[in-house]
Amino acid sequence: MAKLTARSEDYSKWYNELVVQADLAENSGVRGCMVIKPYGYAIWEKMKEELDRKFKETGHQNAYFPLFVPKSLFEAEEKNAEGFAKECAVVTHYRLKTDPNNPQKLIVDPDAKLEEELIVRPTSEAIIWSTYKNWVQSYRDLPILINQWANVVRWEMRTRLFLRTTEFLWQEGHTAHATSAEAVEETEKMIHVYANFVQNFMAVPVIKGLKTDSEKFAGAEETYCIEAMMQDGKALQAGTSHFLAQNFAKAFDVKFTNKEGKIEYAWATSWGVSTRLMGALIMAHSDDKGLVLPPLLAPIQVVIVPIFRNEEQLAEIDNVVFDIKAKLESKGISVKYDNDDQNKPGWKFAEYELKGVPIRLAIGPKDLENKSVEVARRDNLTKEVQPLENLDTYIDELLKTIQTDIYTKAKDFQQDNITKVDTYEEFKKVLQEKGGFISAHWDGTPEEEEKIKQDTKATIRCIPLENPLEDGVSLISGKKSIQRVIFAKSY
Amino acid sequence: MAKLTARSEDYSKWYNELVVQADLAENSGVRGCMVIKPYGYAIWEKMKEELDRKFKETGHQNAYFPLFVPKSLFEAEEKNAEGFAKECAVVTHYRLKTDPNNPQKLIVDPDAKLEEELIVRPTSEAIIWSTYKNWVQSYRDLPILINQWANVVRWEMRTRLFLRTTEFLWQEGHTAHATSAEAVEETEKMIHVYANFVQNFMAVPVIKGLKTDSEKFAGAEETYCIEAMMQDGKALQAGTSHFLAQNFAKAFDVKFTNKEGKIEYAWATSWGVSTRLMGALIMAHSDDKGLVLPPLLAPIQVVIVPIFRNEEQLAEIDNVVFDIKAKLESKGISVKYDNDDQNKPGWKFAEYELKGVPIRLAIGPKDLENKSVEVARRDNLTKEVQPLENLDTYIDELLKTIQTDIYTKAKDFQQDNITKVDTYEEFKKVLQEKGGFISAHWDGTPEEEEKIKQDTKATIRCIPLENPLEDGVSLISGKKSIQRVIFAKSY
Repeated sequence: MAKLTARSEDYSKWYNELVVQADLAENSGVRGCMVIKPYGYAIWEKMKEELDRKFKETGHQNAYFPLFVPKSLFEAEEKNAEGFAKECAVVTHYRLKTDPNNPQKLIVDPDAKLEEELIVRPTSEAIIWSTYKNWVQSYRDLPILINQWANVVRWEMRTRLFLRTTEFLWQEGHTAHATSAEAVEETEKMIHVYANFVQNFMAVPVIKGLKTDSEKFAGAEETYCIEAMMQDGKALQAGTSHFLAQNFAKAFDVKFTNKEGKIEYAWATSWGVSTRLMGALIMAHSDDKGLVLPPLLAPIQVVIVPIFRNEEQLAEIDNVVFDIKAKLESKGISVKYDNDDQNKPGWKFAEYELKGVPIRLAIGPKDLENKSVEVARRDNLTKEVQPLENLDTYIDELLKTIQTDIYTKAKDFQQDNITKVDTYEEFKKVLQEKGGFISAHWDGTPEEEEKIKQDTKATIRCIPLENPLEDGVSLISGKKSIQRVIFAKSY
Repeated sequence: MAKLTARSEDYSKWYNELVVQADLAENSGVRGCMVIKPYGYAIWEKMKEELDRKFKETGHQNAYFPLFVPKSLFEAEEKNAEGFAKECAVVTHYRLKTDPNNPQKLIVDPDAKLEEELIVRPTSEAIIWSTYKNWVQSYRDLPILINQWANVVRWEMRTRLFLRTTEFLWQEGHTAHATSAEAVEETEKMIHVYANFVQNFMAVPVIKGLKTDSEKFAGAEETYCIEAMMQDGKALQAGTSHFLAQNFAKAFDVKFTNKEGKIEYAWATSWGVSTRLMGALIMAHSDDKGLVLPPLLAPIQVVIVPIFRNEEQLAEIDNVVFDIKAKLESKGISVKYDNDDQNKPGWKFAEYELKGVPIRLAIGPKDLENKSVEVARRDNLTKEVQPLENLDTYIDELLKTIQTDIYTKAKDFQQDNITKVDTYEEFKKVLQEKGGFISAHWDGTPEEEEKIKQDTKATIRCIPLENPLEDGVSLISGKKSIQRVIFAKSY
C-alpha cells in the first residue's frame, strides 16, 4: 500500500488518504454521496449499538418516519424552512419512460409530475411534528420520547468523506413534553448522554456548551452542543441537542389539555449525532501509520500474526493460537488470526497498523519455546514480550488501559491547546501561531462575533456549560463580560 | 378502543384496522409512505437483529451505498431498468428558493436543475455493481459478501400498510463470486436462511421454491422465493434470493483474473426481505381480538396486571410482583408490570390482547393468599392458575411451548389448505369455494400461466424445491408434466 502523507505535511490530505486506505469509505459515482465500506460500517455499527442502548436506557423508543417531506410542511415553520429547506434534493416526478427516440435511454415522464414537490428530508422536525398532531390530545399522551435512525440529505457544495456529505446517516431524537422545564431537562440530559458516549467510547474529550444565537439550529430556542478538538487544533461539533420551545407545536398545531383542563401547545426537543462522528474518531487519535481505534469501538480488538518459515512451524503455531483465541473470545474480545500464507509478517504488521487494531500479538518458533508472545500496542507503538500463561487476563486489562490512555492523550492535547487570551491582538497571534481553542471574553453581541469571524475565520464554538464566572472585558468592543467563551476554527 | 371488524366479515378491513389499533403503523401525510410507530418498530428491530445475526454467521458484512442512483446507471442493465426504473421517485433539482411573489412560499429554483436526474433507489444492484467494478481485480478479491439495511422507494399506485408502501425498509444482500457454482450455492444458502428465520422466529411455515420466468426478478437468471399462506388462503412472498449470473458484471464491467490467469466476469447474487414481513407476521397469526405475536418477536413477552380495590392491596401486590418480575427478567424474559391506576383490569386485558402479548399474569388478593397467579395465553386464550413457586421456570417453558404451538397451528392451516387438483374445472372450483394454495400440473409455458392468471387471478407462486417428481398432464394444454407447482392468489 502507498504510504500516508504525514499529518505535519498536509493534515487534510492525510485524512482523505487515511479514510480510503483504511477501507473506511470512498466517494461514489453520485455527487457528494459516499460508500461506507464494511470496515468503516462495522465501526459505525458499534457506535450505533452503544448509542441505541443509551437512548433506550433513558426511556426512548425507536420509530420510523417518511423519507419525503411535502414542500408545504417546510413552509409551516419559517425559521426551519430558512435553515434547511433550501439546499436539498427535490423530487418533482414519479416516473421515467423509455425515450421514444432511443429505446436504450430513459427520460423523465412529463405526465408524471407531482402536484406538490417532495423534499428528501434534511431533518425530520416538520414531518414528525405534523404526525405528533394526531398523537397528542391530553397531558397523559406526553411525553413522547422517540428516536429515529435514518439517512438524510443536504445538498452540500464542498463535501468530504464522513465530515460533510450530501447523504449521511444519523439518528434524530424528537420529543414532546407538557412543560418547558421538562423539555429543557430532556435537552440537557441528551447532551450529557452524547458527551458520555464520545468521551467514554470514542475516547474523545469534549466541551459541553451552548451555541450563540447566530450558531444555533434554525427553529431552536437554545442549542446545546459538544465540541471536540482535532489534532490540527480545529473544532468539530460532535453532537447537538435542541430546545425547540413551542415553535414546532405552533407551526403544526400540536395542542393538549393539561392537568388543569387548559389547552396548551406542546414543548419540543430534538437531538442528533451522525456519521460525522466517524470523522471525529479518525482525526482525534490516528497517526502517520494509520488509524488508532479505541478498543471499545474496534471491530477487531486483537490480531494474531504467526511468524513461520514452513508449514510445520505454522501447524505448531496454529495449535497454540487456537487456544489463545478461544480464551480471548470467551472474555468477549474480538480476535482475528491472520495465518494467510500470501503476505509476509511485515506486510501484515503495516496493514493492521493502518486499520488501527489496538493489540497485535506476534508468535514464532522462539516464542513457542519460551511459552511467550510479542504484544504490540497500536496506540503508542510499544512492544513487549509476555508469557502465554494468563495471557487472556493480561490482554483484557491491557485493552482497558489502552482505552484510558488514548483518552488521556487526547485530553492532555486538548488542555494544552486551550489558550486564555485577553486582547484581540493576542487572540489573532495565538490563532495564527498556535491554533487550538481560545478562551476569551465576548460582549454577547452578534456584531462582535461576526467581526471576529470575518477577521480570523474563528467562530464561537460554545459558551461552556461548566463555566466559572469571571469578570472581564470583551475583545473588540471592550464591554463588560462575566464569562469566557470558546473560539476556534472549525470543521 | 373500537372493536375490530371480524376476519370472517372483511379480512382486508380487519387487517387495516388491526395495524392501526395495535399501534404498529399509520399512513403519513406523504402519499403511500407509512409511519412505523414505536410498537411496530420494536417488532421490526427484533426481526432485524436476528436476521443480521444470521447474515453475519454466514460470513456477510454490512456496508452502506448511496440513496440516489444516476439515471444512466439504470440504463446499463436493460432488464433491471425495465423492471425497476420506471415507477420511481425522480430528483430533478437541488434547491428551493423563496417565491418572489410570496415570501411565505418556497418554489423550486429553476437554476438548480441537475445535469443528470437522480433516481431514489428502488433497489441497489446498479449503484452497487458500479462500485464493485473498482473492488475486483483478482479472484483473491472474491467473494464479496455484503448486506445493506436501507430504505427504498417504488412508486406504487395502490398502497397498504407494510404490504405495499411507496417507501419501505429492507435489507439487500449483494454478493460477487468467482464461479457460477459458488453464486448458485450462495443464492440457495440465503433462501434457506430466510426460511429458517420465517419458520423458527416468525412461526410462519413457508414453501421454498423457484419463480417461473414471468414471475422472477428483472435481471435475474433464477429467483428463489419463500411463500407463506395468510389466514384468507392468499399467498405472501416473504423473501427472495436471486442468482443474477453475469448480467450485472457485464453491464458494469466487473472483471477479474481467475486462478488460471484468464479474465472473467464476476457472478452475482442478491437477496432481500422487507417490512412486508410485518404484514406476513400480522396476517398469519392474529385473530379478531388483535395481534398474536410469537414470543421470540414480542417486544413484551409477559404483562402483569394487578387486581386491586385500594392502595393497600396494590402495595402488597407490588411487593410480590417486583420479585416475580426480577426473576423473569433474569431469565431474559421481557416483562411489563402495568400498575397504572387509571385503567380497569378489563381494559388492560383487552389492550394487551390487542397488542398480542404472549402471556398475561393477573394477580389479586386471593392469589396472594393462595400464593398463586392466573396465567393467560394470548395464542389460544386459555387461562389457568399456577403456584408462585418456580413460576419463572414455568413461564420460560410456556413461552417455548407457545412459540411451537403458534407454528404448529399455522402449519396445520397451511397443510389443510393446499389442495391437489388435476383438472382445470376442479382448479377453478377449489379456488373459488375453498381458496388456499393449489398444487397442480403445468406445461411449463408462459402462455398457460398467463391464461390461468387472466381467468382466475391465481399465479404460479413457485415450483417447490422439495418437489416429488410425478407424471401428470397440465391443466389447460394437457401436455405432459413431471411435477406439480403451487398456484394461488397473492398479496
